[in-house]
Amino acid sequence: MTPLCRFALIFAVVLLPVPAVADPLPSWNDGSAKAAILSFVEQVTEAGGAHYVPPPERIAVFDNDGTLWAEQPMYFQLIYAFDYVKALAPRNPGWAESRVLRAAMVGDVAEVLRNGQQGVMQVVMASHAGMTVDQLQASVRDWLAEARHPTTGRPYTAMVYQPMLELLAYLRGEGFKTFIVSGGGIDFIRVFSEEVYGIPPEQVIGSSLVAEFVETAEGAVIRKLPELNFVDDKAGKPVAINLHIGRRPIAAFGNSDGDLQMLQYTTSGEGLRFGLIVRHNDAEREWAYDRESGIGRLDTALDAAEERDWTVVGMESDWRVIYPAEAD
Amino acid sequence: MTPLCRFALIFAVVLLPVPAVADPLPSWNDGSAKAAILSFVEQVTEAGGAHYVPPPERIAVFDNDGTLWAEQPMYFQLIYAFDYVKALAPRNPGWAESRVLRAAMVGDVAEVLRNGQQGVMQVVMASHAGMTVDQLQASVRDWLAEARHPTTGRPYTAMVYQPMLELLAYLRGEGFKTFIVSGGGIDFIRVFSEEVYGIPPEQVIGSSLVAEFVETAEGAVIRKLPELNFVDDKAGKPVAINLHIGRRPIAAFGNSDGDLQMLQYTTSGEGLRFGLIVRHNDAEREWAYDRESGIGRLDTALDAAEERDWTVVGMESDWRVIYPAEAD
Repeated sequence: MTPLCRFALIFAVVLLPVPAVADPLPSWNDGSAKAAILSFVEQVTEAGGAHYVPPPERIAVFDNDGTLWAEQPMYFQLIYAFDYVKALAPRNPGWAESRVLRAAMVGDVAEVLRNGQQGVMQVVMASHAGMTVDQLQASVRDWLAEARHPTTGRPYTAMVYQPMLELLAYLRGEGFKTFIVSGGGIDFIRVFSEEVYGIPPEQVIGSSLVAEFVETAEGAVIRKLPELNFVDDKAGKPVAINLHIGRRPIAAFGNSDGDLQMLQYTTSGEGLRFGLIVRHNDAEREWAYDRESGIGRLDTALDAAEERDWTVVGMESDWRVIYPAEAD
Repeated sequence: MTPLCRFALIFAVVLLPVPAVADPLPSWNDGSAKAAILSFVEQVTEAGGAHYVPPPERIAVFDNDGTLWAEQPMYFQLIYAFDYVKALAPRNPGWAESRVLRAAMVGDVAEVLRNGQQGVMQVVMASHAGMTVDQLQASVRDWLAEARHPTTGRPYTAMVYQPMLELLAYLRGEGFKTFIVSGGGIDFIRVFSEEVYGIPPEQVIGSSLVAEFVETAEGAVIRKLPELNFVDDKAGKPVAINLHIGRRPIAAFGNSDGDLQMLQYTTSGEGLRFGLIVRHNDAEREWAYDRESGIGRLDTALDAAEERDWTVVGMESDWRVIYPAEAD
């Protein structure tokens, strides 16, 4: 055998498919949650199996805040909105007439939240409306590069959950298409979703303001208006999934009551379905909160998980690491 | 050299990349339109070239009615709606109180159209609202299987344009993601888009009614309500592109004034962009209509094409065949 031939044969052998031995979810501790995920994926991808699902129908939907990244002490998009209002207040003297915006300017979060969703919306409108989508996203990009979380000191995009990043990659490797379905703003999430999660903008669904098309001297742009278009939360999530995806997902991942209907819609389809809830029970490494929390309340969805046999992930016991910086 | 080795070497040579010689657009006659398409695609896919666009940004958007399939004597979805109202009239005695619906029942298209968009909307509401998305799509699927076009006698899905099918496949082969952005109903198009165009439901954008999430005894469903959610036409198209895709396309394909803003939005982005208009000028093999047509009017967009250097395809001269059945 010539050396060339020997090389060709060795090369061919090396390229032969061998059973995968690497653990696709190394940041997940062995336990019932990890086993449930692996079992579901193996069943729906087993050609000829009773639960086989063709790749185009392998749709998996993920909540963002509290499911893919942290959400305490409040949704990171709100922290952005507060920072924006503070920074831009000198140029917007009219804001001083609003009690809520005055509170936002001095960082009085409690006062803004006392006005409930209306208070929050006022801050979001002040920080998002009137801009083009390009301007808003440039502003968010700048903020994400500089801002640091008040207690961890980390960039916000470093507070994504390593086990969920592995899960996203694992599912995609098994032919799934992964979508974000978030109560957060669609333009906001799209700034970092592709780089951080590997999820392109067209697979991000979220809340939005009404937008308009405008031809300017510099070209055609999309501008956000101070009017709510869609709230992608609770019963809004399955409605948005139908509008944007047009196919019922076979797997849904959430962490709060805002994800209840998305989980119901996903798991009540025909065939094998998978529902999972991330439970924040790790006060030491992350946060611990559920039925009484103002942000990310998990109450009725936790009861439903038991009734409907959804997988509940306890961060404290199921996750070996929380953030990417802690991974090996 | 052993036979095994010889075989391995021959095999390796066979697998070497060779320049593609097959014409990716065999149903397009050689001419400036075909040349413009090929030149654009070559430039944006040439690694290291001045106009290179990475694959995730290769977004191409297509109008449906009149661009991917025919639209005469009226939009096929309207023919479905008329047929539905006719068939279901006996079970809906209330419809007889509406002059428009009475006209629809007896197939008096002219009378419905005399009431403009309102007349059309009344027929669409009667045929689409109140159903779940699954019910509506099953009804459309049944109709598409049975219905035949009044003058060609063909199934409607056989009246897609062979040259555009080749274009869709060519673009996807070159790393593009292809989307439909239609004034037609999003649920309607999704019934056949994957099978006929190779475009999955999550890449179909269209007009829609408001929908609601309902938990029933048979599981969670999405139901259409008799209220307009979004009209995906004219300035609505770029707004919907931003909402659903979140990235400015680099190529847009349309045929009427309803596509003007989508073409403006697409081609006013930075870098090399491509805009194309299909002109219906083939009275013999298809239809000939433009500035004066009620359906698919092409007037201001035709003027804009000249100003903005968009490619205008004349069906009569640029397309060797129209429908797939005529292809070799």
